[in-house]
Amino acid sequence: MNMEKVLSSAISRAGEITRTGEVASYIPELAKFDGGSLAVAYCDMEGNLVSAGDMEMLFSIQSISKIISLALALETLGLECVLSKVGNMPTSDPFNSIFRLELSSSHKPLNPLINAGAIAVISMLSHETPSGRFDKVIELTGKLTGRVDIDYNRNIYLSEKKSGQRNRALAFFLSSVDVLEGDPSAVLDDYFKQCSIECTTIDLAVMGATLAAGGVNPVSGEQVLSESTCAFVRSLMMICGLYEGSGDFAIRVGFPGKSGVGGGIVGAVPDKMGIATYGPSLDQFGNSVGGTAIMEDISRQMQLRVL
Amino acid sequence: MNMEKVLSSAISRAGEITRTGEVASYIPELAKFDGGSLAVAYCDMEGNLVSAGDMEMLFSIQSISKIISLALALETLGLECVLSKVGNMPTSDPFNSIFRLELSSSHKPLNPLINAGAIAVISMLSHETPSGRFDKVIELTGKLTGRVDIDYNRNIYLSEKKSGQRNRALAFFLSSVDVLEGDPSAVLDDYFKQCSIECTTIDLAVMGATLAAGGVNPVSGEQVLSESTCAFVRSLMMICGLYEGSGDFAIRVGFPGKSGVGGGIVGAVPDKMGIATYGPSLDQFGNSVGGTAIMEDISRQMQLRVL
Amino acid sequence: MNMEKVLSSAISRAGEITRTGEVASYIPELAKFDGGSLAVAYCDMEGNLVSAGDMEMLFSIQSISKIISLALALETLGLECVLSKVGNMPTSDPFNSIFRLELSSSHKPLNPLINAGAIAVISMLSHETPSGRFDKVIELTGKLTGRVDIDYNRNIYLSEKKSGQRNRALAFFLSSVDVLEGDPSAVLDDYFKQCSIECTTIDLAVMGATLAAGGVNPVSGEQVLSESTCAFVRSLMMICGLYEGSGDFAIRVGFPGKSGVGGGIVGAVPDKMGIATYGPSLDQFGNSVGGTAIMEDISRQMQLRVL
Amino acid sequence: MNMEKVLSSAISRAGEITRTGEVASYIPELAKFDGGSLAVAYCDMEGNLVSAGDMEMLFSIQSISKIISLALALETLGLECVLSKVGNMPTSDPFNSIFRLELSSSHKPLNPLINAGAIAVISMLSHETPSGRFDKVIELTGKLTGRVDIDYNRNIYLSEKKSGQRNRALAFFLSSVDVLEGDPSAVLDDYFKQCSIECTTIDLAVMGATLAAGGVNPVSGEQVLSESTCAFVRSLMMICGLYEGSGDFAIRVGFPGKSGVGGGIVGAVPDKMGIATYGPSLDQFGNSVGGTAIMEDISRQMQLRVL
Repeated sequence: MNMEKVLSSAISRAGEITRTGEVASYIPELAKFDGGSLAVAYCDMEGNLVSAGDMEMLFSIQSISKIISLALALETLGLECVLSKVGNMPTSDPFNSIFRLELSSSHKPLNPLINAGAIAVISMLSHETPSGRFDKVIELTGKLTGRVDIDYNRNIYLSEKKSGQRNRALAFFLSSVDVLEGDPSAVLDDYFKQCSIECTTIDLAVMGATLAAGGVNPVSGEQVLSESTCAFVRSLMMICGLYEGSGDFAIRVGFPGKSGVGGGIVGAVPDKMGIATYGPSLDQFGNSVGGTAIMEDISRQMQLRVL
Repeated sequence: MNMEKVLSSAISRAGEITRTGEVASYIPELAKFDGGSLAVAYCDMEGNLVSAGDMEMLFSIQSISKIISLALALETLGLECVLSKVGNMPTSDPFNSIFRLELSSSHKPLNPLINAGAIAVISMLSHETPSGRFDKVIELTGKLTGRVDIDYNRNIYLSEKKSGQRNRALAFFLSSVDVLEGDPSAVLDDYFKQCSIECTTIDLAVMGATLAAGGVNPVSGEQVLSESTCAFVRSLMMICGLYEGSGDFAIRVGFPGKSGVGGGIVGAVPDKMGIATYGPSLDQFGNSVGGTAIMEDISRQMQLRVL
Repeated sequence: MNMEKVLSSAISRAGEITRTGEVASYIPELAKFDGGSLAVAYCDMEGNLVSAGDMEMLFSIQSISKIISLALALETLGLECVLSKVGNMPTSDPFNSIFRLELSSSHKPLNPLINAGAIAVISMLSHETPSGRFDKVIELTGKLTGRVDIDYNRNIYLSEKKSGQRNRALAFFLSSVDVLEGDPSAVLDDYFKQCSIECTTIDLAVMGATLAAGGVNPVSGEQVLSESTCAFVRSLMMICGLYEGSGDFAIRVGFPGKSGVGGGIVGAVPDKMGIATYGPSLDQFGNSVGGTAIMEDISRQMQLRVL
Repeated sequence: MNMEKVLSSAISRAGEITRTGEVASYIPELAKFDGGSLAVAYCDMEGNLVSAGDMEMLFSIQSISKIISLALALETLGLECVLSKVGNMPTSDPFNSIFRLELSSSHKPLNPLINAGAIAVISMLSHETPSGRFDKVIELTGKLTGRVDIDYNRNIYLSEKKSGQRNRALAFFLSSVDVLEGDPSAVLDDYFKQCSIECTTIDLAVMGATLAAGGVNPVSGEQVLSESTCAFVRSLMMICGLYEGSGDFAIRVGFPGKSGVGGGIVGAVPDKMGIATYGPSLDQFGNSVGGTAIMEDISRQMQLRVL
C-alpha cells in the first residue's frame, strides 16, 4: 500500500461531505477558520510519520486537551483520587450540559471528557499554583507531541474567556457542591488556556501514537505516561470521546478517538498507531465531519478497527 | 499457558468479591439462584472450548438477549430502519429509565441495549406475527450458540411478566410517541420471553466467538450474521453493554461485553475469541460482580485488551 | 347590573380569540366538537343561576373529574392517606408528564391534578370493587352538580381508552414504584370513564358553587362535601388547576379554577359563586382559550378576584 | 376579639413546632440567629398596626426581596417586557434549581420568585447603572414599608457574596442563553444586596398591607405601586411564593405569601390586611416553620382565607 496515496485519497473523498458541517461560531476566533480545510496524519510505533492535506496548519486542540489534563491528574494524583471527583461513565449529554450535576445525588460530572468533568479535573491539580498548573499541562503536551515549543494561542484564549459563560456556570455549580476545589475563575482560566493550545495534525498523530504505545512517545522514545494511564484514557475516549457521536464513531471507525471543536480528532489504535485528522466543519454534536469521514475511510483501508 | 488453570484460578480469585454482590430479587424467580456460583468459558476462532466452574449450569440470559434481537433486526430490516426508531448513543441512564424518552425531542431510546431500546427493536420485527417473531429470535440464538434445543424458561418468563410493570410503562410510553409499533402487550410478551432464554456459560462463549469472528460460528462453521452486523453489535456492547458500568468494564476489561441480570456476561474479542462468565451476584448497576472480576483477570493474563 | 347582558357580552367579546385555539385531537371523539361554541353560567350562594351561550350543550368534563375523585378520596380516606401517595405541590410539568416520577426520590406524583396524580387517587379508592369505585365518583358528580341522571359518554370513553397509551405508561410506572395500588388496567378504566362524564356548563356552575359554598350544593341544599375538603380542592385548583397556564389564570382571573381538554372550566369564588365556561378550542397547555377570556372578562366586571 | 391576644396566643402555640426547624446555615451570617425567636404583625387597610413577639427585631428579607424587584420591573418596564425574560408558571423546583434552564426550550426561568427568575429580573433593570439599580430597589422598599432609613446589612451581604456559588452558576447560565443582560457579577452583587435588606416584622406587615391595598401604603397614604402590579405580584405569591411549600401554604393559610430564608414571611390579604411573621427556624424547603404555623393559626381565627 502506498500510504501517502491512501491518506490523500481519503482527504479527497471527504472533500464534499465536510461542506455539510459548520465551523464553530460560538467562540468568535474559531469562526475565522476555513471550513474546507482538511488534513490527516499517522504515526506508527516506530515513529514513522505519514501525512496529507493541510498537515502543518496550526489549530486549537479544544476538548482534546481534556485527555492531557486527565492523564496528568492520573499520573500525579492517582486513579482513586481522580474518581473521587469525576465519574467514568458514558453519556450522550451535550458537552456543556449541566442538568445531571443537579439531578445526580453525587453531583459528580459523569466523566472527564465533558466540560464539567474536565473543569473538575483541572481543579484537582490545584495543589500547585494556578500558573504552575497550566505549565504542567503544556509541558506534558510538549512531551506527548514531541514539539517542545508548543503554546496556546492568546487570541483564541481571550475569545474563549469572553464567550465562556456556560463554562462559568459549570464551574460555579461544581464549586457550590464541593466538587471543584479552589477558585473557579482561576480553574476556568487554565481551562480556557488548555483549550487554546495550538498544534498541527502531525503533532496530534504523535500524541495519539504515544497513547497507543502505552505512554512511550515513538518519535522521542521517552516514556511520557504509564501504560495504565494510557489504558484508562483510551477506554474513556472509546466510550465518550465524541459526545453524542461516540457510538457513531465506534461503529464507523472502531478505535478510541477524541474530538475538539477546533476541528481536530486524535485517534489511538493500541500497539499500532496514532492517527489524527483536521477539518473545522463540525456536525451537530461538535465533531469534525470531514475528520470522521477520513478516519472511517482509513480505518477500513488499513483495517484498524479494534471493535 | 495451561488454559484450564488460568480459568480456574480466575474463578478461585473471584470467589470472595462475588459475595459483595446481590442476586437480583425484583424478578422473584431469579432470587432463587446461588449467589456463590461462578463459571467461565472461552471459545477461540477455531472453535476450541475451554471452561471452568459451573459451566454447564443453565441460567436466563436476560439483557444479553438484547444483542440477539438487535442483530436479527439489523439483518432483516437493515441499519437505517433500525436507527429510525432507536439511537446509537452511549448513556449511563439505568437500564429501565424512562425520563429521556419524554425529555428528548425525538422520544427515541438512546440505544438498543437499554430496556426501552430493546423493546423498540422487538416491535420493529412485528411484520411477522408475534409468535413468529419470537421463533426467529430463538432460532438465531440457537445458531449463535450452536445449541439447537435452546429454549426459554417458562417459570422465569411468567415471573418476568408478573413483575414487569416498569417495562410496561416503557412500552406504553413508546407506543404513545409512535416509536413502538403494534400492540405493546404482545411486544412485551416476546421481550419477557427472550429475557428468559436459558443457556450455559459455554453456550454464551460460542455466541461471543461468533460475534468476534464476524458472524461465523467457529464451532458449526455456519455464517450466522454478517460482519457489519457484528461490528455494529460489538461497538454498542463496548460503549454501553454494561449500563452505568460500561466505562468501568472498558477500563478494567477492555473488550466488548454485554451483561444480563441473570448473572451472565458475554464478551467478544474481535478475531480472537468469545468469552463468557456466570455469577448471579450483581453490583448496583445490575452487572455480575464475580463475572467482571473474572473477565478482568483473564483479560490481563491472556492480554485480551483491545483498548 | 343586568347579569344576562354581562354574560352574553363576555361571550360575544370572546368570539374572536377563541378561534386562535384548537379543538383537542389526540382523543378522536373530542375532535368532532365545534371550536366556535361558547357558553358561560354562574350559580350564586342562593342557587340563582344565570347563563348564556350554548349552556345546555353536553361535553365531557375530562380533567375536571380529577377534583371529584380527589374530593371523594379526601372524604372517604382522609387527608393523610391521600398525601401518602400524591403531593400537594405546584408544577408546570405538562399534564401527561412522566419524568418527575422517575427523578424524584419518592416517585409520588407532584399533585392530584396532573394525570399521574389523578390516576394514583383513583387507585386509592380501590378498597371498593372497581365497578363500585366508579359508581361512587358518578354519584358524587350527581350531587355536586345536582343532576341525578349524569352519566359518562360511552363513545368518548372508548376513544379515550383506545388512545390512552400515555396514561397507561403513567399507571404502570406508578405501579412499578408501588404508588398505584391494584390492577393498573382497572384503575385506568375508571380514569377513562370519569374523564368521559358529560355535563352542561350549568351543571359545572352548580358544582363550582358547591365547592365555593364549603360543600353545600346551593340548589339542592345538600351538604355534599366538608368545608375542609373544599378548601383543599380550591387551594390546589388555584395553584395548579390549569397546568402551565395556572399562573396566567391566577393573574388574569384571580380565583380557583380547573380546566378539562373537553373545553370546560369550572371556577369557585369562595362564599360567592360558582362559575363555569365552555369553549372547546384550547391553547398550547390544553386550556380553553375562549373560556379563560370569558372568565377574565366576568371576573373584572363582577369584581370576583380573590388574589 | 382582642387582637393582641390573638397574636400572642398564636406565637405561644407556635413555640414548640418552631423548634423542629433549623436556622439556615449555608449563609454563615444567618446561622447566628436565634432559632426560637418568633414575631407577628399585621397592618389593616386603615394603617392600624398590631404586633406581638420580637416584632422590632431586624432580620434580612432574603427572597422576600424578589417581589420588590419584580414590582419595580413591572412598574418601570411593563408586563410584556418582564415576561420576555421570565415565566409566570408555578413550579416545585427548589429555589436554587438550574436543570430547567437547560431542559426547557426557551431557557427562561419558570417564574420571578425562584432565584434564577429573580436574577433575571434584576438584570432587566440594568438600563440604569448598577448602583442606581439597587438604589431604586431600596427606595421602593422604603416606600412599601414606610421606613425611610431602611438599608441592607453589609455583613450578611458579604456572607451571601462569599457563599453564593450556586447563584453565580445560575447567573452565568442565564447569561450564556441571553436571558440575563449585562455583567452577571454586577447583577449578582445587587441580588446579594437586596437579599440582605434588613427590616422588622412590622415593616413587612406594612409592605404586605401595601400589596393588599392595591399599592397604597395604608400608613403613609402614598400610592407606591399600581393595582395591576400588585395583582400580578399577589398572584405569583399565591402559586409559588413558598417554593415546594406553596401548595401546603395555600391549603393551610389560604392567602398570598412570600417567604425568605432569613425567617420572614409576608402575607397579603387583598383589601383586608398585610400580615407578617418572623421565625428563623426553617423547614426542608426553606420556609419558616413557626411563621407558617402562626399564619395558619391567625388565618383561622380571623377568617382570612381567600381560597
